[in-house]
Amino acid sequence: MKVTLLAGGTGGAKLAHGFAMLDGVGLTVIVNVGDDAEMHGLHVSPDIDALLYTLIGLLDEERGWGIRGDTHSAHTMFDRLGAPTWFTLGDADLATNVERTRRLRAGERLTDATAGMASALGISARILPATDDRYRTRLQTDEGLLDFQEYFVHRRQQPEVRSVRFDGVETARPTPEVLDAIGESDLVVIGPSNPFVSIGSTLELAGVREAMMATNAVKVAVSPIIGGRALKGPADRMLASMGHEPSAVGVARLYSGLIGRFVLDETDTSLAPAIEALGMAADIRPTVMGSDTDRMALAAALIETRDMLTR
Amino acid sequence: MKVTLLAGGTGGAKLAHGFAMLDGVGLTVIVNVGDDAEMHGLHVSPDIDALLYTLIGLLDEERGWGIRGDTHSAHTMFDRLGAPTWFTLGDADLATNVERTRRLRAGERLTDATAGMASALGISARILPATDDRYRTRLQTDEGLLDFQEYFVHRRQQPEVRSVRFDGVETARPTPEVLDAIGESDLVVIGPSNPFVSIGSTLELAGVREAMMATNAVKVAVSPIIGGRALKGPADRMLASMGHEPSAVGVARLYSGLIGRFVLDETDTSLAPAIEALGMAADIRPTVMGSDTDRMALAAALIETRDMLTR
Repeated sequence: MKVTLLAGGTGGAKLAHGFAMLDGVGLTVIVNVGDDAEMHGLHVSPDIDALLYTLIGLLDEERGWGIRGDTHSAHTMFDRLGAPTWFTLGDADLATNVERTRRLRAGERLTDATAGMASALGISARILPATDDRYRTRLQTDEGLLDFQEYFVHRRQQPEVRSVRFDGVETARPTPEVLDAIGESDLVVIGPSNPFVSIGSTLELAGVREAMMATNAVKVAVSPIIGGRALKGPADRMLASMGHEPSAVGVARLYSGLIGRFVLDETDTSLAPAIEALGMAADIRPTVMGSDTDRMALAAALIETRDMLTR
Repeated sequence: MKVTLLAGGTGGAKLAHGFAMLDGVGLTVIVNVGDDAEMHGLHVSPDIDALLYTLIGLLDEERGWGIRGDTHSAHTMFDRLGAPTWFTLGDADLATNVERTRRLRAGERLTDATAGMASALGISARILPATDDRYRTRLQTDEGLLDFQEYFVHRRQQPEVRSVRFDGVETARPTPEVLDAIGESDLVVIGPSNPFVSIGSTLELAGVREAMMATNAVKVAVSPIIGGRALKGPADRMLASMGHEPSAVGVARLYSGLIGRFVLDETDTSLAPAIEALGMAADIRPTVMGSDTDRMALAAALIETRDMLTR
């Protein structure tokens, strides 16, 4: 059973972990790279790393990024050296970024660097950056146009976001692996990640929507909004500030025409009719993935109901 | 009083620290870069860093490199990622190398990157890499031709060294700052560092010997060999395996014609006549620099006796 998951931050990573723990699933995760940035001269890919760390059980779940129990000696030294320190990198996390940068400088595509690192970490899921090209999420906010990490980390998501754009969208291309994965899957899942900056960034790449439309896979999305709130991150506020309904329905509307089924949390049972009015099946499930068991249960439910799903 | 010190490893760094603690000394340290290497895609400069860390009191004196009390989370992660780990970099030490590499990739000369980092660390001494060009010490050993770090760290100095060569010696040039420092100093000191790989590497750069011969500075060397042994590192064994006398006399002979005075340890008083027979004054001093007081005392002695020194 070939499953392709579009993912961004921690919600998508948890669901990926759920699929990875199931037998008989060939998992491919297409990961947002709009959050990538250059820090200390290194290529940082926060969403790829959150996924890598989640899959090997090392993610600092409390912070939602980085490695649990990591030390911060490098951070202190960067500070002594006068280097900017608003983007905190733990020491082990720094090593990941150094190794990625080494591979990229040696000429590897981000796709291959990621595959090599995932393989070294013993990860069997295939992790595909959405693109190997330069592609950066930029946010038009009340306080001006900000790079994603500037908004997300440095400004702590304080400015209200009015629109999102992707630098490089005219020239960046999804990798052949990404398009093939969507085309060849039995099931394509849009993970419970921010629909603009985690999923939208990938969907906006030329050819991805078309591949989504053309695939024979069953297509389902999981709501990142539960009871009007994002479990983590600013998805709820971004929906509102960008003029959308800050609810599962607001998210579903963004995916209208693209998917056949939408999974929403038990908390949002009352929203099912509004979802179905968008022309997709509403699938009510527990979607909070606190434990490994929760993650596996949601992944298994997505797989088991595949045959019932509207294509 | 302008003092220029040629230095390599820990001995030279300790003497630099001694000079730096004295009032009224404008210190320039010309540092060996033949030990530089690429590790994890980063430009590592072990002798520059040993000097930086010594001057701010952070050197791990027991190991002779790296930062005292540093953590090693990055090392563990590099190992997980399948990256080579024979060259251990502590986490704070890694940050130093990341920052250096960032500056170099941004187009700074190694000279300027070093100056910027030293300044951020509050170091007032001027630290000059011997050259900004690619320049690498290679050792012909019983087990083949080895890169310096391969010999020094990976092979733990086990193979016997038969000769030393410097890749890039035909094209690498000392920086203008290096030649000016030698020319404009009142006192030029060859530190107690390995005469081949720490000092020889700098002296072999085109124009350095000539600058040493042309300067009006008083020129003095401090023996890195005490009682036939190097305090740290393989200088004693390298003298022997390369056909030199493994003693202060063997070192002095290498500097014959270049300096007017040679400082040897009290332990080696009996060698004074052999030193003087080489045409240089023998200056007997305590040269073991365990404490800050020892370091300052040796530096002060070198300065105070300047007027007595043979030019």
